Amino acid sequence: MLSTHMQDVLRQLQDRFGEQRALVAPDELRAYECDGFTIEKGLPLAVVVPETTAEVQWVVQFFNTHGIPFVARGAGTCLSGGPTPNRDAVVIETARMKAVLDVDYDDMIAVVQPGLVNLHLTREVCGEHLHYAPDPSSQSVCTIGGNIAENSGGPHCFKYGMTTDHVLAVEVVLPDGRLAKFGHPSAARGPHELDLVGLFTGSEGTFGIATEITVRLSPDPECVYTMLASFQTMEAACGAVSSIVSAGIVPAALEILDQATIRAVEASVFRAGYPQDAAAVLLVELDGAELAVEEDAAEIRETFRTHDAIRVQEASDPEERTRLWKGRKGAFGAMGRLSTDLYVLDGVVPRTRLVETLQKVTEIGERHRVTLTNVFHAGDGNLHPNISFDGRDEDERARVLQAGHEILELCVAMGGSITGEHGVGSEKLSHVPLMFDDADLDTMERVRRVFNPRDLCNPGKAIPERSGCAEVSKWPAMVEHVLRQEEA
Amino acid sequence: MLSTHMQDVLRQLQDRFGEQRALVAPDELRAYECDGFTIEKGLPLAVVVPETTAEVQWVVQFFNTHGIPFVARGAGTCLSGGPTPNRDAVVIETARMKAVLDVDYDDMIAVVQPGLVNLHLTREVCGEHLHYAPDPSSQSVCTIGGNIAENSGGPHCFKYGMTTDHVLAVEVVLPDGRLAKFGHPSAARGPHELDLVGLFTGSEGTFGIATEITVRLSPDPECVYTMLASFQTMEAACGAVSSIVSAGIVPAALEILDQATIRAVEASVFRAGYPQDAAAVLLVELDGAELAVEEDAAEIRETFRTHDAIRVQEASDPEERTRLWKGRKGAFGAMGRLSTDLYVLDGVVPRTRLVETLQKVTEIGERHRVTLTNVFHAGDGNLHPNISFDGRDEDERARVLQAGHEILELCVAMGGSITGEHGVGSEKLSHVPLMFDDADLDTMERVRRVFNPRDLCNPGKAIPERSGCAEVSKWPAMVEHVLRQEEA
Repeated sequence: MLSTHMQDVLRQLQDRFGEQRALVAPDELRAYECDGFTIEKGLPLAVVVPETTAEVQWVVQFFNTHGIPFVARGAGTCLSGGPTPNRDAVVIETARMKAVLDVDYDDMIAVVQPGLVNLHLTREVCGEHLHYAPDPSSQSVCTIGGNIAENSGGPHCFKYGMTTDHVLAVEVVLPDGRLAKFGHPSAARGPHELDLVGLFTGSEGTFGIATEITVRLSPDPECVYTMLASFQTMEAACGAVSSIVSAGIVPAALEILDQATIRAVEASVFRAGYPQDAAAVLLVELDGAELAVEEDAAEIRETFRTHDAIRVQEASDPEERTRLWKGRKGAFGAMGRLSTDLYVLDGVVPRTRLVETLQKVTEIGERHRVTLTNVFHAGDGNLHPNISFDGRDEDERARVLQAGHEILELCVAMGGSITGEHGVGSEKLSHVPLMFDDADLDTMERVRRVFNPRDLCNPGKAIPERSGCAEVSKWPAMVEHVLRQEEA
Repeated sequence: MLSTHMQDVLRQLQDRFGEQRALVAPDELRAYECDGFTIEKGLPLAVVVPETTAEVQWVVQFFNTHGIPFVARGAGTCLSGGPTPNRDAVVIETARMKAVLDVDYDDMIAVVQPGLVNLHLTREVCGEHLHYAPDPSSQSVCTIGGNIAENSGGPHCFKYGMTTDHVLAVEVVLPDGRLAKFGHPSAARGPHELDLVGLFTGSEGTFGIATEITVRLSPDPECVYTMLASFQTMEAACGAVSSIVSAGIVPAALEILDQATIRAVEASVFRAGYPQDAAAVLLVELDGAELAVEEDAAEIRETFRTHDAIRVQEASDPEERTRLWKGRKGAFGAMGRLSTDLYVLDGVVPRTRLVETLQKVTEIGERHRVTLTNVFHAGDGNLHPNISFDGRDEDERARVLQAGHEILELCVAMGGSITGEHGVGSEKLSHVPLMFDDADLDTMERVRRVFNPRDLCNPGKAIPERSGCAEVSKWPAMVEHVLRQEEA
């Protein structure tokens, strides 16, 4: 039951935004209780849907006045709990701020609003043979604002870099409601000063809300060529990847599916004709100048032979290429058939330790009796072990979480990291100390407090709270004290 | 005359490091009074030459105890006053920390000390067909620590990115003497958390001293091909650059020299046989797979023709390529002949506005009667107008500074930026407000105070001091107060 004060606050919100843009009914709020990390849920207090930067500022200032936490949300496709409200927070939904504000075709930059769907930007500019390079698997629904929050990757980031490599400038409503601009919307070299854009990108929605984003566009490659090879062992598939990379070839994508994934895919509507006896399928995409692609393809064909590929398929025309990608793109959908819930893990290991890591991941899965499939960006060593489970089964849920925890510990022990592209969110808070000690986390928290001193902006994400960090928690209060003195 | 206290401090330094590694004699200090930006000079109090991370920590803690500012220095090739001591500071010289600590050839990463010369890293790994990609013009002498401080670029950064794109992790002696680690030394995707490495890179030595640096190595391209074309107008040369880029070709380098530079080069020992009647020389370097390079070269040859190139030279063997590069690499040396001092400016404009900007730069030069030459990274729109002058002539110096100021104002007015790769240092403090307003600068300063609360670490660089920023200057004192309370 809401307090009278809170009822009054929500009424003010509805007065300002109307019932269509200020949702308070529990059945309407249900859609916002989690993102793709369905293990943790939290019903928001309300959902507000601003349409302009001024409205975002108004909302943030309003919540500051009332001391209410808030969380910005794009499409909710995040996989680490990033936009999940975990402390009676209000969700600020950016869906109505989806305009392409400006495109400079000569300098190849675009200015967009945060709610713009990733793929829609490419659709907007494809007539001029340009595209927006970062391509998360969810690119047909996820938003550029959300991509910035999580510094999203995607299959083609092996060659083209993560979101952070494509963001030139952001206009941000800071957690206190002021408007700031980070970076400089010049197409040329950067950053030209303290890299606040890089700092903001990947800060998981805890540094403010981006309301205008300037991104780099990329020219379409002259030619795209897709090759798919199946192998008798995972070792052979990973060996092929290492050979390709150390030969100096830089494919646009290097993706592997393991046997369990192949079987799930082939049993689903995403059936792509992958050989079901294969231990692994490797998808290699090349792009660039036609002759260069041909030359690389010849070398890769030879590499496939050396690693005893069972079968190789190749395609250059778009329809055929789509067919080869079908299994990879449908992998997550296919897993939906295995059980009601899916936990998509995200860890990184050095490419040279992929085989060893995958063997140990399998052992962990067996020990905890969970259903594991592996789809991964092999070029960057970015693993996605996927655990299918029934979230209603308490015991299974506990085993899934334990297996997940051990897999991420394993990645760190292998010299890798707990996240390649999904972020820490709330999912991996307990894993962060595996990589960073108190001094590191203290520095991160202090930096965050510069932007988010009252911790109202997406609290409880990205950096674990630590009891030993007393001076940090006192810091913002001291700053406010000084600021008040200044004003007086 | 030094105070008795300061004399005692310096004696303690010499007791600890010996006279060879703690310099205090004015004639020894003279070499440290400025970097490549010779307009501003300041004699340091002393120079200390640590050999280990522990010694850097000791030194920083020692200076903290005595409240003495300190500045880390690599080779001193910076061009914006970065390592110039401007407030009775002590210089911490990293020359003896130049080891390659570890190379992982499979995962293509290296761990190095900050004083390692940029080119020496490539020499160390070239046997395995790897190299370190960022290549400032000074790469045969400049250090990787200094490159990180300034986020250095270089001719090949058009294709391969700036220093920040190649740094995976840094161990840092924080300005208070504590040791911290930012980033994660995994070769794969990153950053995986709040991007403190990206924040540190380009913070111009004001966030602490890097003592161990993990960088990405890059595989050598299969083939390198250099093309040099001369043109009758600057417009034609810049037009060719735009045509090449919009055709989707990504050369490794796209460099232009203007007529004044060509003449200076041809009159010097760096004589490269450039046609002296040409208004501009364009150097294009292609690298990658042989067939791709050939295909791109054919297209570029055609572009040269379309833009009425006077003469085209091409080379693939290393000796011939070196000859084509000779004029470009010797350009700064050649300018040494024009006068005693050289002010190398660094501004960025959108590629599409290069011609217009260069015309206005010439007008500014004429108005202030200064000797101007232009060498620039045309692909990124990164201009380097160079002013040759006699630093002993007060009147000429004043005109040089005024012309420099107007040129940077022009870059901003053209939609560009005041620095592409040299940093702000002390040189451009007065230009920063052309790009950032008080709120932006306030955020930057607050972030810096997290790392450098007492402002002892390279004070007076990168971010201008503003009188209106009272809460910022009070902030560190408040924090210290809290910290003391915690300890008590």
